[in-house]
Formats: sequence, structure tokens, C-alpha cells
Amino acid sequence: MSIEKALVVGTGLVGTSAALALRAKGVEVCLSDIDEQAVALARELGAGREWSGEEVDLALLAVPPHLVGERLAELQKQGVARVYTDVASVKAGPIADAERLGCDLTSYVPGHPLAGRERSGPSAARAELFDGRAWALCPGPGTGADAMRLVRELVSLCGAKAVTVGADEHDSAVALVSHAPHVAASAVAASLASGDDVAISLAGQGLRDVTRIAAGSPLLWQRILAGNAVAVAEVLDRVAADLAAAATALRSGELDDLTDLLRRGVDGQARISVPGA
Amino acid sequence: MSIEKALVVGTGLVGTSAALALRAKGVEVCLSDIDEQAVALARELGAGREWSGEEVDLALLAVPPHLVGERLAELQKQGVARVYTDVASVKAGPIADAERLGCDLTSYVPGHPLAGRERSGPSAARAELFDGRAWALCPGPGTGADAMRLVRELVSLCGAKAVTVGADEHDSAVALVSHAPHVAASAVAASLASGDDVAISLAGQGLRDVTRIAAGSPLLWQRILAGNAVAVAEVLDRVAADLAAAATALRSGELDDLTDLLRRGVDGQARISVPGA
Repeated sequence: MSIEKALVVGTGLVGTSAALALRAKGVEVCLSDIDEQAVALARELGAGREWSGEEVDLALLAVPPHLVGERLAELQKQGVARVYTDVASVKAGPIADAERLGCDLTSYVPGHPLAGRERSGPSAARAELFDGRAWALCPGPGTGADAMRLVRELVSLCGAKAVTVGADEHDSAVALVSHAPHVAASAVAASLASGDDVAISLAGQGLRDVTRIAAGSPLLWQRILAGNAVAVAEVLDRVAADLAAAATALRSGELDDLTDLLRRGVDGQARISVPGA
Repeated sequence: MSIEKALVVGTGLVGTSAALALRAKGVEVCLSDIDEQAVALARELGAGREWSGEEVDLALLAVPPHLVGERLAELQKQGVARVYTDVASVKAGPIADAERLGCDLTSYVPGHPLAGRERSGPSAARAELFDGRAWALCPGPGTGADAMRLVRELVSLCGAKAVTVGADEHDSAVALVSHAPHVAASAVAASLASGDDVAISLAGQGLRDVTRIAAGSPLLWQRILAGNAVAVAEVLDRVAADLAAAATALRSGELDDLTDLLRRGVDGQARISVPGA
């Protein structure tokens, strides 16, 4: 069994990008979205054709985290696909929803591609969005081997690298490497409100890089962060404490805490730096 | 009068890059550094020849902020150049040092190119480091018109855009657009110490961008930050307060403060985003 026909539910940035990547590999792709214009645009971009309710090998749910469980239950009830996965950036919540709604967990592999852009919607989609990126898969004890195999194939067709991880561990990890950094970027960008035009004219590439992701949709990010609230809050508290301590060090002239923070920053950055990049 | 011969004092990243830019425009460049190996490397890279004590049109002091006043006083005593400028990323302190040491302020134009890299030293230098970047000039009431003209020529030869601004206004501005963002990037990078290898494997381009500048030299940055301590501390306190409020909002589920921060972040980021980039 391999993926010959797929259904993408939710033709936003991630769903349409996955559809384009699958189309590029010759997979037949059906598209569905509550927003008819989004489906029409994805179709025009070559992402596939409108879904007519037919059965498929794999259904990819690219809907907001709080809607994953509900949509999964509906599709499974209709027997639409043999295997289901989603792309929500938090995993414990959607899995709990799926359990609560009585979904079949053998055919569902919770997933999360670590890829995105500041822009959203199908018009921002790119077939290469997932190239070389990590794609987390969070199977539970009941996940079927066939389901895992098909979803691994999806990840591979999209050019990404599958990383298998428990749902709770995933949510803690993305709080650290994605969600809290987004809020930190927002806070730095928000501080610019106090700058006059001369200050803004002195902004360089460093600041642009630090704040780039802060351009993301507030509504989308509020939902993502709320879905991973405690883990994100823990990281934010640590970052806030480090910044407050740095301010105190600067005011007192006793710079040990500041120097220590700068050194820990170098070490932390080195952990994620790509050699030669 | 124009720049036919220049002296670059301090052949680190910025000094050597300026020397390379000037050489590319046919200016004769002399190089000086207390580190003989740094001068030798800059020379090998084509940045100019070793300074033999001769007189020049313009001397560019590319030394750490706390050494600017001292070096300026020495060079002016020897009558080395007609015009002097520096590249320190804080301005009020070096200017106060220069006044205290009895420097001639008519021939000195305090300057600061808004350009840098995470790597330091002459081997990281590039002639195009300043291309299209802002280069702040902070003339005082006594700065001579000829000095300003020659330093504007330097900025132009390096491909940068001169931005004239008062020293105190400059220091507040760079606290906002450069110094505090550096500490925030360090704090996010430092938080990664708590992540296991799986968490680190989920890091994407967004996190890499947010934390890129945190790789900068802790010693260099400690000096820069200490030279602009109060202005940086004020921005850091605001950012820390926003992050702590976001954590509180996430824990309580009353998300208004969080949504407001995300919206302010979008607005702040828009102020520095380059259209079409």
C-alpha cells in the first residue's frame, strides 16, 4: 500500500504546500476547505482538484489545532481514508480531543511539520516548504504499523525528515524551539513602537532577523500558544527572568549575570547552528 | 580636499572591511593594530599596507568603545590626520572621553556603521559589509564642516547611507534596535540549554533567525552593553515585562494581554520590514 490518492483538508499555507509537494511526485490530490475561495485558489495553483467525497489512501488534516479532533471524527465516520494525519503545531490537545470523540486511533498518526512562513493562506504555499525540515510524528501505543508507514511516506514525498517523539515531549520541545521564541520575537518587535523614525532608520539585518517571525498572524498564534500554554509559559518565565537580571546587572554595573547570559547564549546558539551555513 | 590616503586603526571585522572598501575605490590605506598578526592578516587580504607613522587625510578608529578617546588623543597629538572618526556602537561615552582628554573636537566626527557579523576579526571582513547600511554620524556643536564633508565621503565610499543624529539620541536608538535585541536573542538561545537532542532536532529556520546574533563575542558585547547601560536596561525591562505578562496570560487563560502583544509585534515588525524582501 502506498499513497496514490490523498485528501488535503484545509488549503492554507501548510495544506496547500503539502498538496503541491504531493502533486509534484505524481500523487492524485483532492482538496477541501470550508473557505471555497481558498480551495479555488489552491486548485488554480496546481495543488489538486476539489474533493467530491470520494475515498482516498491518506487524509492530511491541515486545520487549526482545536479543530483536528472534530474533523478527524467526521472523516473517519464517513470512512474517507485508510490513514489520517494532521499538521497541528501542538499534539497533546488534538490527541485528547480525538480520544474524547471516540476516533479510531489505529489509523491516525499525529504529525507536525516544522516549517512555515510569516505569510499565510494558499497564495504563500510552496512545494519546497518542507525541504530538509523536521516533521514530527507522535504515534501512540495504539497506532497501526500500516498507518505509520503511509505517513512516513507522506513525509518523505514532501522532502522532510521524520522525527518520532511522544506527544508531551513534542509539546515541550516546540514550546522551547518555536512557541516561546515567537513570543520573544513579538516582544522585541513590540518594543519598537517607542522608537522615532531616526531610531527605526538605524535598524539593521540583525534586528530584522530577530523579529521576522513576529509578523505571523496574531489569531493563529494565539491559538497555537493557548494550545501549549503551560509549557510555553515556563520557557517565557525563564527568558523574562534572564532579561530582567541583565537589566539589573547593567544598572548596577556588576556585570557577571550579563556576561554569563551572553556566554550561555553563544552555547545555546551553537546547538542549533548549521555547520557551514 | 578628498580622501586620498586613510589610516585604519584596529584591523578587526569593521576596520578591515572599511579598509577593503576604501581600497576597492582606489584609496591608499595604512593599517595599524596592537595585534601584529591582525595587521598581517588584513594586509594579506588586500586591505592596505602597514602604517609607518606617516600623515593621512582621514583616520578611522575601529577600536573598542572604551579606547576611542585615548587613541584619538594620541593620534591628534602626533598630528597624524586632518580628520578623525570612529565606529564605536555607543557614542556619548567616547565623546565624553575625548572631551575629558582635551581632544580637538573640530576634526573629530563620531560615527557608527550599522553593520556587523557574528564572526569577528579581519578574516571575517568583507568590502561590501556596509553596502546599503545606515552609518550614523553624531557631530557636536564644534564639529568642523570640512571634517563632516570628509567623513561623509568615507561613508559614501563604503557604500553606506549617512544618518546624522545627536549622540544621546543615537545611543537610545541603538539600545532599541540593536543592543536590547542582542540580549533578547541571547536569552532565547540560552533557554535552549534545557532542551534535549530531540527538542533541538525540531529547531527550524525561525529559531535560527531569532538567535543568530547571539553568536557574537560575549566580551565585545559586554563592553558595548556596559557603554549604553541605562538605555539598554530600560528596553530590556519593557521586553521582560511583556514576556512575563504573556506567561501570566497563558497560565490564566485570559489571553487579552497575549493577543495585544502579538498584535503590537506585528505593527513593530512592519516598521522595519523591507517591502518586497
